[in-house]
Amino acid sequence: MNYFDYRYRVLYADTDQMGITYYANYLKWFEAARTEYFRALGFPYTECEKKGIYLPVAEAHVNYVAPSTYDDDITVRTSVVEIGNSTLRFEYQAMKAKTQAVIATGYTVHVFVHSVSIHGVNKAMKPCRVPAEIREVVKEYALLKKRCRCK
Amino acid sequence: MNYFDYRYRVLYADTDQMGITYYANYLKWFEAARTEYFRALGFPYTECEKKGIYLPVAEAHVNYVAPSTYDDDITVRTSVVEIGNSTLRFEYQAMKAKTQAVIATGYTVHVFVHSVSIHGVNKAMKPCRVPAEIREVVKEYALLKKRCRCK
Amino acid sequence: MNYFDYRYRVLYADTDQMGITYYANYLKWFEAARTEYFRALGFPYTECEKKGIYLPVAEAHVNYVAPSTYDDDITVRTSVVEIGNSTLRFEYQAMKAKTQAVIATGYTVHVFVHSVSIHGVNKAMKPCRVPAEIREVVKEYALLKKRCRCK
Amino acid sequence: MNYFDYRYRVLYADTDQMGITYYANYLKWFEAARTEYFRALGFPYTECEKKGIYLPVAEAHVNYVAPSTYDDDITVRTSVVEIGNSTLRFEYQAMKAKTQAVIATGYTVHVFVHSVSIHGVNKAMKPCRVPAEIREVVKEYALLKKRCRCK
Repeated sequence: MNYFDYRYRVLYADTDQMGITYYANYLKWFEAARTEYFRALGFPYTECEKKGIYLPVAEAHVNYVAPSTYDDDITVRTSVVEIGNSTLRFEYQAMKAKTQAVIATGYTVHVFVHSVSIHGVNKAMKPCRVPAEIREVVKEYALLKKRCRCK
Repeated sequence: MNYFDYRYRVLYADTDQMGITYYANYLKWFEAARTEYFRALGFPYTECEKKGIYLPVAEAHVNYVAPSTYDDDITVRTSVVEIGNSTLRFEYQAMKAKTQAVIATGYTVHVFVHSVSIHGVNKAMKPCRVPAEIREVVKEYALLKKRCRCK
Repeated sequence: MNYFDYRYRVLYADTDQMGITYYANYLKWFEAARTEYFRALGFPYTECEKKGIYLPVAEAHVNYVAPSTYDDDITVRTSVVEIGNSTLRFEYQAMKAKTQAVIATGYTVHVFVHSVSIHGVNKAMKPCRVPAEIREVVKEYALLKKRCRCK
Repeated sequence: MNYFDYRYRVLYADTDQMGITYYANYLKWFEAARTEYFRALGFPYTECEKKGIYLPVAEAHVNYVAPSTYDDDITVRTSVVEIGNSTLRFEYQAMKAKTQAVIATGYTVHVFVHSVSIHGVNKAMKPCRVPAEIREVVKEYALLKKRCRCK
């Protein structure tokens, strides 16, 4: 699976007085999209946290191409496009579900961290290597991508 | 001090496509108001949490009297109106700062809880008594209120 | 249809540092639930607004029965329980989808309003009667409810 | 004035279960910061909208340098760093107010638009030139910046 399509219905809560989606809310949709992508890959993020591994955001970017409005049926297409020693980079494309017209594109960079304890007390979050099973799936995805040149 | 006035400027983020503040956001303002009230009383809520005591919300209510709009300068007047064995009840009155015209009233009920550990592992949050120093200040406030019949 | 079940997956965005859903976010889920309920009844709310009729919230209430946490699969059961001249009252029951364990109950009261224009200029929102087609469906629902004593 | 310092107290509402500010919320703080910056310059954004001119976001970026947590006292330093025919670019630096330790940097690009009406009906938002009075102030700021090499 080289990308995942997450569906979302724009809420009143998402809109602002300009009558369009408030710009910060796209980052929430991106979160939901990458969560469902990981679940679909067989690695629900909750499993990561159970092992004491967290995935905070290091960088986020959005290009607002066209507005979305209340009750719009949105698809957020997500994929992992880069994998470093301890980082992942996701890309997103938000589209009107029906027409596939792009409304926003963006990316987020995440760092795998785990809590380091000193004398039995949790002290801080330190970067750690991308877990092997995630690396594997993502590489497989990359190969797939090369082969089929999808997306 | 029998009430605290918290000032807030309505953001674009708060509004919805009806051109008014989205109804859920008043609960965020209420949170900010009770936090600043506690700080002003000398009990910042962060101190509670450092002692392992938390104050989750058990009940929340809002009456929307009149709309508020972008860039409105709002006062949220807050007070503790009831203190139980392990509960506190706050009341709120959101007003246009200039005219004191009421835009919303509401209340929240909170339960003091602390984490209970079994064999050294945190197991669950259990209700606990309102800390003595908070009870004291709140009682004092009640007396004040009787005397001056303020608010 | 005397109630509608809306499914929702709790986001990281919904949680707070207590590790549970922040209390204001239930009101967003309630919004999504009543929107989907109306769509299922055949009256998408967007159709209302196209006719210049809006449905702002006059009152909102939540009882927080048990916490919900990240990635919880939630059902919000919604129904209209009262219909006045210009008002509707919705009730909500948020449950863990699997176990049906209740995590929150609540209600919202809404007022139908339309914009009144003077000399061709929109002046203000004034309450108006509940549109006949909505009243009809809701009454039918009430009869159903009496018959089957569901919910 | 070549930058504006906006102060903000991190709410429980801002945090997530990692115990830090949820990444989307920085964009809300950026909004508040640029609003207050414009007010300080003498051009409250509400005045723009009264003239039918809006300033939607075309691009947003955040680098998350260090986490912020509940009740942190934050300064968001904001300035306009670029002015195009119809665009403005703001830069932001969020810092712990006391130590000036940077927690996030970012920027937003905005496009001035006005609503175009056909046969008396509002049809669409079209880009328009940056209003002269805003351009003037921003240029002056740029000169200042060159002179004092501030920031």
